[in-house]
Amino acid sequence: MSSQNNTFVAPLERLAEQFRKLPGIGKKNAYRLAYHVLEYSESEAQAFAQAILDAKRLICRCKICQNISDREICGICSDSRRKKNVICLVEDPRDVAAIEKLGEFDGVYHVLGGVISPLDGKGPEKLKIAELLERIKSLYSENGDDYKIEVIAATNPTVEGEATAMYISRLLKPLGVKVTRLAKGIPVGGDLEYADDVTLFKAIEGRVEI
Amino acid sequence: MSSQNNTFVAPLERLAEQFRKLPGIGKKNAYRLAYHVLEYSESEAQAFAQAILDAKRLICRCKICQNISDREICGICSDSRRKKNVICLVEDPRDVAAIEKLGEFDGVYHVLGGVISPLDGKGPEKLKIAELLERIKSLYSENGDDYKIEVIAATNPTVEGEATAMYISRLLKPLGVKVTRLAKGIPVGGDLEYADDVTLFKAIEGRVEI
Repeated sequence: MSSQNNTFVAPLERLAEQFRKLPGIGKKNAYRLAYHVLEYSESEAQAFAQAILDAKRLICRCKICQNISDREICGICSDSRRKKNVICLVEDPRDVAAIEKLGEFDGVYHVLGGVISPLDGKGPEKLKIAELLERIKSLYSENGDDYKIEVIAATNPTVEGEATAMYISRLLKPLGVKVTRLAKGIPVGGDLEYADDVTLFKAIEGRVEI
Repeated sequence: MSSQNNTFVAPLERLAEQFRKLPGIGKKNAYRLAYHVLEYSESEAQAFAQAILDAKRLICRCKICQNISDREICGICSDSRRKKNVICLVEDPRDVAAIEKLGEFDGVYHVLGGVISPLDGKGPEKLKIAELLERIKSLYSENGDDYKIEVIAATNPTVEGEATAMYISRLLKPLGVKVTRLAKGIPVGGDLEYADDVTLFKAIEGRVEI
């Protein structure tokens, strides 16, 4: 056994390895977190472990919008005051949280679970697109064929996000759905000088009369 | 229920709260980690939770040096090639790991579990000082009163670290123990210009003949 191995404590290594799997946690930081957990009381460690297991066990996907929920139908989908015909299509649950924080949007959501990304082996079939089509079809069958449905394709303005929005809009338009996309431009409080070319071009292209 | 509460999912909040208790993890980052764990498979979540419980359950303190260990006597204390009469006194297990990484030190350690810090309500009785005195007494009784013992007080060069080193040296010197402290000076690769005053003063004070 080399002297370096003298400080090897298997359970600590295993815990540090678990922390290292988390996004943005490097090797040194993982050990720092693992040492911190060692200082926990038995009940604190139990609470942490239980929170992890509960997050897996108790959180499901809302049957309608596919957002995370602890109920079969989430709070937004079961809220009668929300407009069921304005569906904001987002990549993941964090996007829902970001828009809900505004408190301004009174429609509903559909969580895709990512974007189409062939390089990562993620085709359209891995996203909740079939569920979206099903949902729209049942909206029409419940409310008649002249029911007005708008889908705001709010995937991120990245290459994959744009491609995914285009792909889905091609599926939705033949059904009579209005598909919109979030405005692109200079962020409020931003500076023209530091805007990248594409953003600046989009801001000029999308200029509005005042 | 306000629209903001619509995205409240209790198990997710509980998990984010647990991540927030970790050092250096803010609110946004805690949610990011919690969402990441939601993507885990059942067995991955199980492995993470188990690693936390195991770290508490399987890691104990070495009976001799108080360092973390998965055995009653740690690998360093049970290694017959290490000098048992050169004891490096450190604040916590991470310091042991840092020195062991060098592979140069062939003595043993004693982990205090912190420093004396009256402002944080941490008096000497909360540190493993009694265990150190006991350990030294039994070294003398095993090896005779003229046994040469050196304690390297390697607490950090902070106010509390210095005070703790002084406090312990006053307890140890009457027992005939040689107490030393790590050299202070300019870090290797450092720059005189950017050294703080105290470090520069210590470097001059501690100058060595070449």
